[in-house]
Amino acid sequence: MLEFELIKNYFQKLSKKSPGALNLNDDVFFDKKNKLVVSVDTYTEGNHFIDFKKPELVIKKIIRSSISDLICKGVQPRYYFISGSGDKKSFSKSNLLKISKSLSQEQNKYKIILSGGDTVFSNKLSFTITSIGFANSIVYRNKAKINDDIYVSGNLGDSYLGLLVLKDKLKLNHHLTKYFINQYFIPNIQLKLTDQIKKFANTSIDISDGLLADLDKMINNQKLSYKLFLDDIPISNNLKKVLDLKKLSKINHVSNGDDYQVLFTASQNKRRIIKKIASNCGVKLTKIGSIQSHVEKSHIIDGKNVQITLKNKGYFHKF
Amino acid sequence: MLEFELIKNYFQKLSKKSPGALNLNDDVFFDKKNKLVVSVDTYTEGNHFIDFKKPELVIKKIIRSSISDLICKGVQPRYYFISGSGDKKSFSKSNLLKISKSLSQEQNKYKIILSGGDTVFSNKLSFTITSIGFANSIVYRNKAKINDDIYVSGNLGDSYLGLLVLKDKLKLNHHLTKYFINQYFIPNIQLKLTDQIKKFANTSIDISDGLLADLDKMINNQKLSYKLFLDDIPISNNLKKVLDLKKLSKINHVSNGDDYQVLFTASQNKRRIIKKIASNCGVKLTKIGSIQSHVEKSHIIDGKNVQITLKNKGYFHKF
Repeated sequence: MLEFELIKNYFQKLSKKSPGALNLNDDVFFDKKNKLVVSVDTYTEGNHFIDFKKPELVIKKIIRSSISDLICKGVQPRYYFISGSGDKKSFSKSNLLKISKSLSQEQNKYKIILSGGDTVFSNKLSFTITSIGFANSIVYRNKAKINDDIYVSGNLGDSYLGLLVLKDKLKLNHHLTKYFINQYFIPNIQLKLTDQIKKFANTSIDISDGLLADLDKMINNQKLSYKLFLDDIPISNNLKKVLDLKKLSKINHVSNGDDYQVLFTASQNKRRIIKKIASNCGVKLTKIGSIQSHVEKSHIIDGKNVQITLKNKGYFHKF
Repeated sequence: MLEFELIKNYFQKLSKKSPGALNLNDDVFFDKKNKLVVSVDTYTEGNHFIDFKKPELVIKKIIRSSISDLICKGVQPRYYFISGSGDKKSFSKSNLLKISKSLSQEQNKYKIILSGGDTVFSNKLSFTITSIGFANSIVYRNKAKINDDIYVSGNLGDSYLGLLVLKDKLKLNHHLTKYFINQYFIPNIQLKLTDQIKKFANTSIDISDGLLADLDKMINNQKLSYKLFLDDIPISNNLKKVLDLKKLSKINHVSNGDDYQVLFTASQNKRRIIKKIASNCGVKLTKIGSIQSHVEKSHIIDGKNVQITLKNKGYFHKF
């Protein structure tokens, strides 16, 4: 069973009295009256992170992944709660020191504060992060309009390449190895966008499962589809170099998730302000396609104006 | 390492800018400005619950355990978030139906609403529950005063007896077996006390780890100790019957935790109002001892006025 079916079939009805739960079909919970925004996510070893050899990096990855849910909605994260399940080895003194130091660095960088949590003994390592912020409004899912431009922040695909390197599926030189592994563990999330995104975005999501999977999720209740231009999807110079060198296809390496970049749509008349804000904030925002009526099927167009289809649209959570 | 050492040594400093985190030394997080109260707890199979043969009961147990943290502080729980890690068998359609039905019953009973969460695949079953409420004030830990009376709500020990029965360490007749197992899974938490407790309690905690362990925790920053009267510790008629029948000692069966009753202290001049409120609300509140200066050691006095000592003070979370 796919996760979204599980939620729809068994849990959606339980949240119907809570308008803030947004039918369990958004990245966050938003209680407008109390201005409260909440995100809860669980990360398990072997699934969301390969192993715990570098606890200081794993911790950064999961904290950023969690607060990314708030940031993409235009909400400054304020508090986080961390609940860790693990064994003596995972929570050795040396690891605890590394975790603590990493959390301290993330706190300074993102102005968040550890506010509680739990620690339980388990032979399976996992963390649940609850992130909380306050806002008068948020950018919702499912608010795209026909002809909206589709934008993405930063670059895509670096994290996936890092994963391939970590899994020994790709051999690169020392410099590139270090670069991509770093991108995998420490995604460059866009805190600077938080206070700006409400000025132009109609709808938004963060890319955790993959560009296409998350694009589908962003408009899953709307009778809409999308058109993307492959050449416009932003990638780093390092990724470009590797794709060229190893003769790898771009489309297969930019939609595998863990990017934690912001995906959003905006009306065409917002192009000027988006350019200006991107420049002022020093955040890369790239127009990669547009929203269209569902009469047309969602598709991607490559550099030769040819429509391409994908086998794998990203990561789907299954049971 | 004990959990409290882990928190103190590695995490307390990270929360110092958050007055609401209460130095990670209370049952909840309380942001007074935003009136926000949060509790996060993780429950794992084999640790917090024996197995998942009765998902409908396990779910009730962990939901009640979570909101109990808010209730004992005088805070009405409003929203809960459930993050479940498990395999296909744990989250089979039949189990999901049972979980969903149980949650629905708990929602109606306690006026709480499912507001989000996560589901991830894992070969180790665990749940993290985040409970949220709103309040202008809460009853804190570490606010006991010398000569305060110590009270407890409901009865203690039934849940532990249920655990012994479930573990086949105790054989009882059908009627008692059913009673104690029920008490283990479905603790009778005291929602009716929520709006009343601030009227009389100086300090409070819920009993999850055991009467004595939680009493120690409730005053862990204070130079105080306690005196308890064993005969005054309230137990059910069924527990009394079993203790008599099996010649088991009372003290060894009332301080093993999982009771989810409210433990609090109150000034002696509150005795009359406590009696009145208990009677009006139909909640059993029993005076079981008093707070004293740390010059005297904490102790328990049995029916023959003899001081007794305990080997096992309850459950301590270890790594």
